[in-house]
Amino acid sequence: MAGGNDMNIDMIRAAAARLNGHARRTPFLSSPFLDEIAGRRVFVKAECLQHTGSFKFRGGWAAVSALTDAQRSAGVIAFSSGNHAQGVALAARMHGAPAVIIMPSNAPAVKIANTRALGAEVVLYDRATEDREEIGDRLSAARNLTLIRPYDEPEVIAGQGTCGLEIAAQAAEAGVSEAEVLVCCGGGGLTSGIAIATKADAPGLRVRPCEPQGFDDVARSLAAGTIQRNATAEGSICDAIVTPQPGEITFPIMHALCGPGIAVSDAECLHAMALAFHRLRIVVEPGGAAALAAALFHGAALQGETVIAVATGGNVDAATFIRALDTYPI
Amino acid sequence: MAGGNDMNIDMIRAAAARLNGHARRTPFLSSPFLDEIAGRRVFVKAECLQHTGSFKFRGGWAAVSALTDAQRSAGVIAFSSGNHAQGVALAARMHGAPAVIIMPSNAPAVKIANTRALGAEVVLYDRATEDREEIGDRLSAARNLTLIRPYDEPEVIAGQGTCGLEIAAQAAEAGVSEAEVLVCCGGGGLTSGIAIATKADAPGLRVRPCEPQGFDDVARSLAAGTIQRNATAEGSICDAIVTPQPGEITFPIMHALCGPGIAVSDAECLHAMALAFHRLRIVVEPGGAAALAAALFHGAALQGETVIAVATGGNVDAATFIRALDTYPI
Repeated sequence: MAGGNDMNIDMIRAAAARLNGHARRTPFLSSPFLDEIAGRRVFVKAECLQHTGSFKFRGGWAAVSALTDAQRSAGVIAFSSGNHAQGVALAARMHGAPAVIIMPSNAPAVKIANTRALGAEVVLYDRATEDREEIGDRLSAARNLTLIRPYDEPEVIAGQGTCGLEIAAQAAEAGVSEAEVLVCCGGGGLTSGIAIATKADAPGLRVRPCEPQGFDDVARSLAAGTIQRNATAEGSICDAIVTPQPGEITFPIMHALCGPGIAVSDAECLHAMALAFHRLRIVVEPGGAAALAAALFHGAALQGETVIAVATGGNVDAATFIRALDTYPI
Repeated sequence: MAGGNDMNIDMIRAAAARLNGHARRTPFLSSPFLDEIAGRRVFVKAECLQHTGSFKFRGGWAAVSALTDAQRSAGVIAFSSGNHAQGVALAARMHGAPAVIIMPSNAPAVKIANTRALGAEVVLYDRATEDREEIGDRLSAARNLTLIRPYDEPEVIAGQGTCGLEIAAQAAEAGVSEAEVLVCCGGGGLTSGIAIATKADAPGLRVRPCEPQGFDDVARSLAAGTIQRNATAEGSICDAIVTPQPGEITFPIMHALCGPGIAVSDAECLHAMALAFHRLRIVVEPGGAAALAAALFHGAALQGETVIAVATGGNVDAATFIRALDTYPI
């Protein structure tokens, strides 16, 4: 595994070349109604419209496409109950590579079914009694599978960084050379990848991680200058971006290029989801709405006339979405 | 007003040049889950992601941008309680042109508020006691306003046709040279515009209008060879695409290039809306889901391995959207 200082823009450009024609160039959306709420221009990079409904497909494709033929034939393995599972599963299937996804047996049935439907072999484990790392190690050794980590993996960071190349180009097309780029942040793979890309292609853009209140390990780590952990993993509706701590590779990149972080409430994320429904006609999951929530409701923490918010994913169950619409009528 | 035989591909290309950098090139989405339901490949042209949430912005921009400076300074006028109102209002504002929109006083308050918020002067009339044409004629004469009709207007058809140029290009990028293109159809402006565009740029694509059951005036007109009217204007949830009859300009174009039509049920539209939520993460209104409903649930009426469905708009109230999600769980 390469260290953070091995990451560079050339890896992202190489990943972009491999993703070309396979990942979607997701749109750069806006609405005068959102601009009015925010008090500045708001652009939304709609990664919820990426294949499998989140940016994770980029990293999955980048990682699988970087393997040798022998590695691809043997297959890949990932731990995930969410967006990384589906991104890796589809990317592997499109490469003809077997994929094993290790998921907790109490994961939502629809997520297990979706991951299987995308061609992956799903191995369930009991969170209370089994060790997923042990299961993963055993399967990997027996079948020579390559592990694809969700964020602390150079090729995954490079893949997520392709979103940053697009943001740089789309901002320029919109006539924007100076803006803060708000990114929903879990382990930091997307945030650090975008930061490397925009530093190279659009140095007037500054990346700021957005997290749920109470789970702002990245914001606190950036402020402290050393990696800080969250006290707990439970209690936020923003499940997609709750991770124990920033990655060993991603943190030094974020420390050099990003910040300060912004923490948003669950209620603000639900409100941003409702506004994205009414004003942009996109479906955003709670964790995917954190950056838009920061853009709309934390204006005092922002600088400049323009803000770019990445809507990182749209894999939300109907009940949670209905709750957002019911709670925040237009 | 020019006749149907005056419409040609050059007008659409000219409109595309004027729209360039102002209208969005909306994405071409897909999902393996939708392919499986349909039994063939399904691509969705997501016009719900266009400015103001529907393709109507294209026609509005094309019409306003084709005016002389004197006409633009005087302003434009339109009759609409829906998507055409918002498309014209925003296009006019972006051109610095005054816009008067005549809306029924019992239109949903949010639509009136949105149209005003987009800078238009909204003139309300009582459907029971007032004649909107008379109001329009009086205002137009007094203030020298140019009327922009919703579909039977050559520059509007040309603007909607730019969507067809994009479909032709995006199909080619996806490796598709033969497909049926399903279009949600009201008066036929979008349908006829797309048909002219694809005939020129992608002759292997065939356009088929999709309408609500009981309001399939275009399908019946195409079958009869002469313009047929709907028996009533009330009773479909697909309000955006219920019109009394095909246009005098649009019908000859559709008769020459399109068909046969497909009629879908309100229930199928709601089901398609729910699937678009879960599988594409886009918000589609009932009338905007008619083409996707035909793609998913009327496969026996379709030919070929690939179908392209245009999701024409996403301006739906939360209650109707929630009804779709509640009725059709994943």
